[in-house]
Amino acid sequence: MKIELKHGAGGAAMDKLLKEKIVKNIRNRKAEIPLQYMDDSSVIDGIVFTTDSYTIKPIFFPGGDIGKLSVSGTVNDLSVIGAEPIALSSAMVVQEGFEIDDIEKIVKSMEETAELAGVEIITGDFKVVERDDLHDIIINTSGIGKRSPLLDKNFQIVNRYKKHDENWLLDRNVKDGDVFIVSGYIGDHGISVLSVREGIYFETDVKSDVRPLNKMMEKILDVGGIVAAKDPTRGGLANALNEISEKSGVGILINESSIPIRDGVKSACDMLGIDPLEIGNEGKAVIVTVEEMAQDVLNALKETEEGKDAAIIGKATKNLEYVVMETKYGGKRVVEKPIGDPVPRIC
Amino acid sequence: MKIELKHGAGGAAMDKLLKEKIVKNIRNRKAEIPLQYMDDSSVIDGIVFTTDSYTIKPIFFPGGDIGKLSVSGTVNDLSVIGAEPIALSSAMVVQEGFEIDDIEKIVKSMEETAELAGVEIITGDFKVVERDDLHDIIINTSGIGKRSPLLDKNFQIVNRYKKHDENWLLDRNVKDGDVFIVSGYIGDHGISVLSVREGIYFETDVKSDVRPLNKMMEKILDVGGIVAAKDPTRGGLANALNEISEKSGVGILINESSIPIRDGVKSACDMLGIDPLEIGNEGKAVIVTVEEMAQDVLNALKETEEGKDAAIIGKATKNLEYVVMETKYGGKRVVEKPIGDPVPRIC
Repeated sequence: MKIELKHGAGGAAMDKLLKEKIVKNIRNRKAEIPLQYMDDSSVIDGIVFTTDSYTIKPIFFPGGDIGKLSVSGTVNDLSVIGAEPIALSSAMVVQEGFEIDDIEKIVKSMEETAELAGVEIITGDFKVVERDDLHDIIINTSGIGKRSPLLDKNFQIVNRYKKHDENWLLDRNVKDGDVFIVSGYIGDHGISVLSVREGIYFETDVKSDVRPLNKMMEKILDVGGIVAAKDPTRGGLANALNEISEKSGVGILINESSIPIRDGVKSACDMLGIDPLEIGNEGKAVIVTVEEMAQDVLNALKETEEGKDAAIIGKATKNLEYVVMETKYGGKRVVEKPIGDPVPRIC
Repeated sequence: MKIELKHGAGGAAMDKLLKEKIVKNIRNRKAEIPLQYMDDSSVIDGIVFTTDSYTIKPIFFPGGDIGKLSVSGTVNDLSVIGAEPIALSSAMVVQEGFEIDDIEKIVKSMEETAELAGVEIITGDFKVVERDDLHDIIINTSGIGKRSPLLDKNFQIVNRYKKHDENWLLDRNVKDGDVFIVSGYIGDHGISVLSVREGIYFETDVKSDVRPLNKMMEKILDVGGIVAAKDPTRGGLANALNEISEKSGVGILINESSIPIRDGVKSACDMLGIDPLEIGNEGKAVIVTVEEMAQDVLNALKETEEGKDAAIIGKATKNLEYVVMETKYGGKRVVEKPIGDPVPRIC
């Protein structure tokens, strides 16, 4: 059997491949949060660790570039598990013939974003391959962080209302009644990338939302009551909610009219026949709180630049087995785990 | 200006590009061993961190495969700075159409090598790109480790004989009179890869030396007196010695007849007109010790499987500004920093 694009697009096809061909062949020795959790980051010996390779096409897009993306994406994977990011690596694989000026532009963008997030790029690698063997550039950033000192306080507040087993912000940690928040408009990143890609240009005026979210996460951890968090990248909100539902063993009921979606994203999705819930984001988080703290967390989010358009979109419920959405017209539909992201190569 | 293959081949061209276009644009904030040192690993907040992307062609070769390579290479980068490797990430970018069975084969090889090294693969990423955009597979492994508890003892012994400023095994740390050891035969990896590559097959019988060196490094740190260590990958021994010479500001005099090179490597190099000193290795270390401990370290190396063919090859000297080799015929020649590795895409 051969690899298809869907195997790398988040969603069900990738999930199956990873579980059956990769994760099952790797042994968990002593990690506190191992590979097997398939969460945003892992933890061992007090170190939080994550990795992502960025293959986005095109490498410059409205609102960002592969450099800003590669720093933000990895910082966010550390942040949404409850870590303070410390440092990043940067490993570039570049095609022969690539413009050296573009490398410098990308590096400057990485540094600027690292500065914004307060992390340091401390180690790197650089490889060149033949023109026929790679298009453009691939950047891997891995990240290390430490447990946020705010996590203990956060979970004390969580446990004041409802006993939760874990003390990191894990996908598996959601229970009946917990409230789901998104930190702002969804679909911006995927649509902005699609809008400039190879001739499919259209007038959306949508910019990518790519940005580091660690400062925002810090703010809301300080409020307390957060149970889980996840950045809805490949496969979008639909995939993030399904992963949480599966891993936590609880249904989720969301309300369509409460999900923030820009008009430009809506119309682009209508034109292209794709579901905005399945489009990847790079500067948004899904945040799950105990019911009693949801409004306080929402208020704190709204005071941040990154979270000013945040909204409560639904709650976990033991009465459902899946992710279900109440539509604007009063109906209900299952939000399925996408096979893959409808917009490939967005990260 | 455009990227050429030499920019990714270790050596002088890469060095210039990295310094002028990448490193100078990255700010050092608080790392103890920052990116700017351009050493094998970096250190921040007590965490040792390194990254490498593997683009080797072909992905299966005599003595190993890209999986074994990607684990060994990153473990070795941690080890030669004086760290105990703890965990690795694995980020794969795969071409559409790649055989899924080959992915599983590679993953099993990664796990086997991780088991051998005693590290855990704890986090990962998986991306797929279009057939026209990538050949085969690229794997990035990043690694984290902690300062070896043997380093303090090692440097106590170093300082018994000669005061050295650093307390990690850094390239910049070599002084007049320090002794250079290689841990075994050089050139095996590059020649084995070349021997199977695209029709240039010849009868060398040379297998890649790819393997983790952390257990061997532990053994000799326990003996003590190690000043610096480096794995001579891209650009081979010639590049490793030049980097140490430049960063330490000291010349190095090596003796050609003492450098272990297999007959198969020699004859392949003769046939192809390439210098075995410039060919990459993936299971060897250059180890620098204070003079008084050189024999003890050599003896300890010879007791290990990884270092059983180790040899003293020369010493640092303030009487030279460069790396100079006494040839078999009694002459002397400068060992120049190679422009790049003569065998591209070996790691």
